[in-house]
Amino acid sequence: MLGAFTYHNPTKLYVGSDSLEGLARELPHYGKKVLLVYGGGSIKKNGIYDRVMEILKRAEKEVTEVSGVMPNPTSDKLLEGARAARESEADLILAVGGGSCCDFSKAVAVSAYCHDDPWEKFFIRFEEPKAEDRIIPVACVLTMAGTGSEMNAGAVITNPHKKLKIGHVFSDERVFPKFSILNPTFTYTLPKRQMAAGIYDMFNHICEQYFSGHDDNTSDYLSEGLMRSVIASSTVAMKNPENYEARSNLMWTATWALNTLIGEGKTQDWMVHMLGQAVGAYTNATHGMTLSAVSMAYYRFLMPYGLAKFKRFAINVWGVLPDGKTDAAIAREGLADMETWMRSLGVAMNISELGATADMLEGMTDATFILKGGYKVMTREEVREVLRASL
Amino acid sequence: MLGAFTYHNPTKLYVGSDSLEGLARELPHYGKKVLLVYGGGSIKKNGIYDRVMEILKRAEKEVTEVSGVMPNPTSDKLLEGARAARESEADLILAVGGGSCCDFSKAVAVSAYCHDDPWEKFFIRFEEPKAEDRIIPVACVLTMAGTGSEMNAGAVITNPHKKLKIGHVFSDERVFPKFSILNPTFTYTLPKRQMAAGIYDMFNHICEQYFSGHDDNTSDYLSEGLMRSVIASSTVAMKNPENYEARSNLMWTATWALNTLIGEGKTQDWMVHMLGQAVGAYTNATHGMTLSAVSMAYYRFLMPYGLAKFKRFAINVWGVLPDGKTDAAIAREGLADMETWMRSLGVAMNISELGATADMLEGMTDATFILKGGYKVMTREEVREVLRASL
Repeated sequence: MLGAFTYHNPTKLYVGSDSLEGLARELPHYGKKVLLVYGGGSIKKNGIYDRVMEILKRAEKEVTEVSGVMPNPTSDKLLEGARAARESEADLILAVGGGSCCDFSKAVAVSAYCHDDPWEKFFIRFEEPKAEDRIIPVACVLTMAGTGSEMNAGAVITNPHKKLKIGHVFSDERVFPKFSILNPTFTYTLPKRQMAAGIYDMFNHICEQYFSGHDDNTSDYLSEGLMRSVIASSTVAMKNPENYEARSNLMWTATWALNTLIGEGKTQDWMVHMLGQAVGAYTNATHGMTLSAVSMAYYRFLMPYGLAKFKRFAINVWGVLPDGKTDAAIAREGLADMETWMRSLGVAMNISELGATADMLEGMTDATFILKGGYKVMTREEVREVLRASL
Repeated sequence: MLGAFTYHNPTKLYVGSDSLEGLARELPHYGKKVLLVYGGGSIKKNGIYDRVMEILKRAEKEVTEVSGVMPNPTSDKLLEGARAARESEADLILAVGGGSCCDFSKAVAVSAYCHDDPWEKFFIRFEEPKAEDRIIPVACVLTMAGTGSEMNAGAVITNPHKKLKIGHVFSDERVFPKFSILNPTFTYTLPKRQMAAGIYDMFNHICEQYFSGHDDNTSDYLSEGLMRSVIASSTVAMKNPENYEARSNLMWTATWALNTLIGEGKTQDWMVHMLGQAVGAYTNATHGMTLSAVSMAYYRFLMPYGLAKFKRFAINVWGVLPDGKTDAAIAREGLADMETWMRSLGVAMNISELGATADMLEGMTDATFILKGGYKVMTREEVREVLRASL
C-alpha cells in the first residue's frame, strides 16, 4: 500500500430480495420530477418496470422516460438524454437496468446543463464539472451484475461516428449514484450469455487492478478473495441461475470489484479494457465479451513482465501447487485454469466471433489508448499483435 | 450472502504519509470551536500534537482540550468529555490517538446534549439518538492501527464501578467520523507491545465476523484476504516497525476489518470480544491483549461446532495441506498455526498474565454477555470453563 489516496464512497446500497423498498424510502429526499432511464424494454416483460412505476406513483413523482438505452450508449443518445433531463427539469435520474443505463444516467447527469458538447468535454478532453456546475442526482435499480457502475463515478460512452468507446472516471463525488438497489432476484431473468458476460466483466475488473505493482498490498489480497468468490459463485449460477446465494455473491462482488476499494494505493493496468473498448467501437459487441475475447492473448503477452504476480495468481486464486515447477510453468498453469473457467462460462474467446475481421486491425489498433500503469507499456506494434492473436 | 442489509459508510479517509494535509482541507467545513481529544500525552512527545495544533491555528480554530483519555475510557471520563464539549460549544470533536480516543469522541458526540445519564442510555439500554438530537461531528487523526474505530459508528465505554465494559455500534450514520487521517508513519513510535495488541485486535475482528454462518459468502473470501494480509505484514512490521509498506497495509486492513463491509449479509460471532471485555473490566488490560488471552481457549471450544469453517480457515488462511487428513486434524493444524503466529507477536496468551485470578472467574462470567450469532450459543458454564481454561 505504497501510494497515497483519498477514499470516500458516498453511495448508499440497499441489498436483498426486498431491497426495492429502499427506493420508496429514498424518494422523499428528492424533488417531484424523475427522469426514468431504461434499455430495450426487458424490465417491462419481467415486471420490474411496473413495480418501480408503482413506487414512483405512490411517492407522487412526475415521471419522464428515456428508454432504448443501448448496450453501448452513444454520444447521440447522450444528447437526447441530456435534453430530456433539462426539459423535464429532472430532480433525480433513476436508472433501471445494468451498467449501460447507469453509466448513461451519470453521463446525462453532468451533461444536462453543460453548454458545451458533452462528448468532447467529458470523453475527449476529460474535463471535470466545476463546483458551480449543476449535476443532477442519479440513483440506480440494478438488473445485471458486472460493471460496478452502481457504486462508482465512471461512465463509458461510445461515439459511433468516430469509432471511439471511451470511459471517464469522474473525480467529482456528486457523480456517484446517491443510492442503488441491489436485488439479486432482478438478475434471474437475464439470458445466460448476458450473465456470463457480466461475470467475466467483474472478474476482469479485478484483474485490471491486480496485475500491476510489485509491492505487498492489502488491495491484492482483497482482490484474490473477490476472484475466488466469483469463481465459486459463477460455477453454481451457471448451473442454476436462480440460486440466490450465488447470484447475490456475484452482485455484491461486482460492486466491490469496481468501486475504487481494490485499486487504492497501487498502480493499475486497464489495458484489457482499452483493447476491448476498441473492439467494441468496431463491433458494437457486449462489453464483457469484448474483454474476454482479448484477455488470454493479452495476459499471455503480459505474463513474462509480471511473472511474480502471475505466479501468485496461479497459487492463490487457482490453487496451483508450486512444488518442483518453474515460476513460468506455475504462471502458465494459472492462466490455463483461467481459460478453462472462461470456456465453461461460454464467453467469447476471440474477437472474430464478435464480428471483428483482419481489415479492422489497423483501425482497432489506432482506437486503443495505451495506458502506463501496468507491467509493460505496450508499443503500437504490440497492441496490433495482441489484437491479431485475438482474431 | 443470504442476508439483506443496507450499506452506507460516509467516512472520508485521507491515507498516506502526507495525509495530515487532509485535516487542513476539511477544517473550513466546520465551525470555529474544536474539542481536541487525546490520551496520555505521547502525541506531545512524538510531535503530532504540535503539527495538529499548528493546522488548527492556521485555520483560526478556538481549541478546548480533553486529555488523559485512558486505554479503556470510563463512564466518568465520558461525563467530563460531554461537559467540556457542551460548555465549549464544540463544532467538531477531533480525536488524535488510537481507538480509545476515537471511541471516546463518538460517545462524547452523542452525550454532550443528552439530558439523561449517557452510560445508562447508550451502553445499558442501547438507545439510539433521535433524529432531532444534536450530535457533534467527529473526526480522527489516527496514531494506532487496530480498532477500526476511525471508520465505524461504534464506541466501547467501561463503567469501573459496575465492572462492565460495553460496546455500542450506533445505527445513526451521524456517529461515523466525518473524516479520518490515516498516516502510517504516525504509528512508528508506538511501543512494540501496543503494535502487537493492535495487530491481534484487527485479526480478531476478522475472526469474529468469519467464524459464523454456513453459507458461501463473498464476505468470507474478503475476510480470508484481509487475514492473509495481516499475517504477511505483521511479520515484516515486527522485525522492522518503520517498514512503511507493512505499517500502511496494517492500518488499511484494520480499517476494513471493522467498518461493516466483511460482516455484511452474514451472521457474526463476537464472543471473543464479550469474553475479552469482561476480562478488561476486571483487569483494565489493553483491549487487544484481553482478546488474544481468551482466543485459543475459545476457538478450540468452538471448533467442533463450526468444523467446516475451521477447516476452510486452515487451508485458505494458513495454507494447511489437507491431503490424507481428517477435517478435525486440518482444523486443529490451522489453529496451531494461528497460535504460533500469535506467540511470535508476543501478545498475551492467557488472562493470568493480565492480572486475572481464579477468584475473579465468577464475576467475569457474570460480566460476559452471551451473543447468539455464532456456531454455538454458550451456556454460562461454558463461559466459565473457557475463562478458566484461559487462566
